[in-house]
Amino acid sequence: MGSKVRLGVIGLGAQGGAYADYLAEGKVTNMVLGAICDIDSAKKSVASEKFPSIPFYDNYIEMLESGAVDAIVTCVPHYVHPEMAIEALKRDIHALVEKPAGVYTKQVKEMNDFAATKPELTFGIMFNQRTNPLYQKLKNLIDSGEIGSIRRTNWMITTWWRPQGYYDQGAWRATWEGEGGGVLVNQAPHQIDLLQWICGMPKKVYSNVKYGFQRNIAVEDEVTALLDYGNGATGVFVTCTHDLIGTDRFEILGDNGKIVVDDSKKITIKRLAKPESEMSATMSMQDVAKIFMGGNTEELFTEEVLEFESVWGEQHIAVLENFAANIIDGTPLIANGADGINGVALANAIHLSSWLDKEVELPIDEEVYLAELNKKIEAEKRNPIKS
Amino acid sequence: MGSKVRLGVIGLGAQGGAYADYLAEGKVTNMVLGAICDIDSAKKSVASEKFPSIPFYDNYIEMLESGAVDAIVTCVPHYVHPEMAIEALKRDIHALVEKPAGVYTKQVKEMNDFAATKPELTFGIMFNQRTNPLYQKLKNLIDSGEIGSIRRTNWMITTWWRPQGYYDQGAWRATWEGEGGGVLVNQAPHQIDLLQWICGMPKKVYSNVKYGFQRNIAVEDEVTALLDYGNGATGVFVTCTHDLIGTDRFEILGDNGKIVVDDSKKITIKRLAKPESEMSATMSMQDVAKIFMGGNTEELFTEEVLEFESVWGEQHIAVLENFAANIIDGTPLIANGADGINGVALANAIHLSSWLDKEVELPIDEEVYLAELNKKIEAEKRNPIKS
Repeated sequence: MGSKVRLGVIGLGAQGGAYADYLAEGKVTNMVLGAICDIDSAKKSVASEKFPSIPFYDNYIEMLESGAVDAIVTCVPHYVHPEMAIEALKRDIHALVEKPAGVYTKQVKEMNDFAATKPELTFGIMFNQRTNPLYQKLKNLIDSGEIGSIRRTNWMITTWWRPQGYYDQGAWRATWEGEGGGVLVNQAPHQIDLLQWICGMPKKVYSNVKYGFQRNIAVEDEVTALLDYGNGATGVFVTCTHDLIGTDRFEILGDNGKIVVDDSKKITIKRLAKPESEMSATMSMQDVAKIFMGGNTEELFTEEVLEFESVWGEQHIAVLENFAANIIDGTPLIANGADGINGVALANAIHLSSWLDKEVELPIDEEVYLAELNKKIEAEKRNPIKS
Repeated sequence: MGSKVRLGVIGLGAQGGAYADYLAEGKVTNMVLGAICDIDSAKKSVASEKFPSIPFYDNYIEMLESGAVDAIVTCVPHYVHPEMAIEALKRDIHALVEKPAGVYTKQVKEMNDFAATKPELTFGIMFNQRTNPLYQKLKNLIDSGEIGSIRRTNWMITTWWRPQGYYDQGAWRATWEGEGGGVLVNQAPHQIDLLQWICGMPKKVYSNVKYGFQRNIAVEDEVTALLDYGNGATGVFVTCTHDLIGTDRFEILGDNGKIVVDDSKKITIKRLAKPESEMSATMSMQDVAKIFMGGNTEELFTEEVLEFESVWGEQHIAVLENFAANIIDGTPLIANGADGINGVALANAIHLSSWLDKEVELPIDEEVYLAELNKKIEAEKRNPIKS
């Protein structure tokens, strides 16, 4: 392999098209566009016009075996990410999967198990939000123990507005067969990954999920999930696609303070002067009230505000570069492909809780999940919302 | 009856003492202090020193029959509010119950049923927060339909910090036998009432409640409740007593906009230019993205911010005055006593869901609730956290 990784883009849709553009424009320093694959013949003309010198395939296996690519990225429906990653790795081609890693954990586990047999290959996932300096800082703050053990997490992320026209763009969109879910599978996987990356995986999940609540779709457009971390700590995760003026507010309460992230732009850190348990043991309500009323709250806590620039777009380039760097010189991956299973497991648990109408423990029973998902797919075929 | 209502204060603790002071200082224009009752003999000396001309009783029935009072207020443990209200009304004495109306709905229903047989008497409840201009404005906004039908409610109210010393003040505090619960029964009933007053009662509740999570108590100090309004709308209610730098954020999403209340001080109203369903039907994501990026969001929504002064303290006087005015000239009550049952029903449902570990429908089965509560009381006697 040369000094630059030759990437094969599978799927020339919105996301794959953007990656091809970045590469063609030289925006990814250690990577070039090796080949493009799409089963849609219309994309062949697009590719031949925009990228005339780049080989085009309508069969990804042929592309994998062409010798034109060192690595691939899977910009295709979620269901086929694992299959394509496995086929690539089998042929000693490095694999970068789009989020989510898959639709259900059983298929993601198969992918991870196979990848584990090929440790010499690079297996990454496009969790571009992990490159966001704000979330890196947040993770560092939590990992460093600055606010102590987590008592409660609360993320309301309803900025994923999608109009009906978005869902009507393709018959496969927002269907059980085509996507395997709605906002949990398509839009919110970034935050679901960040939540577990920063705060850890819950042990139990209960959810209230609304399917086709405000959109004419079979899958979910409204989600509230109650998380239980098994050690007393709890969490709430709310997302939807029908809030035009969406809210993005992430609060983490710890033993020694609180962090609030507003609009993925601002981190407010409130550090208690002493652990809360010590305050509870040694102070009276009157003491605290006096301090609050006197406005001299520094005796109780200090506040720090960190502002961040929005870096959407550059993040994807950063993941591509990091993935290539891992191939070239072993630079540690920001998002290991195997990590993708946690977000899928959490999304699956949220779905399953709502289907079974009860709290579920993690890891969930994969066979039960798959049986329930298949029931949805069958019901959808008998009574399709879209034709 | 003269032009001023003579109030009998039952229980000369913190709250009853404050009311007696307001009355003695002439702060309630249409009410005077008629008598004081407390079973604690130490309170008798306090009363005779502070209010030498006011009759003192150690038996509230005697006070009710003394002819010294036209009305009473029940500043006593939650369990006995209904009994005292009934005994007063039986004797044609008007009754103002402290919040919560009782510990369990069965006893509150008995009180309400009895009060219904005495429509000529005034039966009120101390929901002082209902007199808060901010919450009156919020209720008007919702009732007027300005943001349309509610899709989601979300109130995180964790400003009820209580140190261990607070709980240790009395053996009855924060016990099942003494209070019948923790933050749901003692601190948060104001917000539980406001939530249902403004947004209506949910049809189903699922909760995750932690008992003695951060305090050495038998009852709950941490609550997350997931509400289902039965029409697709959902809600989240979070409260606790261990967050020193508490959060008070109430968001209501409607068909035509969103309202966020911060710190019970600021209302931010975002009114959509058109109903969201129309936006969804007629706009593309690209249209919306362009408007957001252009910064010209007025095409999508307008924003209004209303700031309010903090009015804590005056609120109680306003409820006392309104209660007396209803007695004197039929001025409508801000908080009818019978309304208290909704908050109790919601708190009971939150408790019951956590005890049964499943979602419960409202109205809950009162007998099941009472049986479970009695189990807690029995277990507490066998294995007391406090002695």
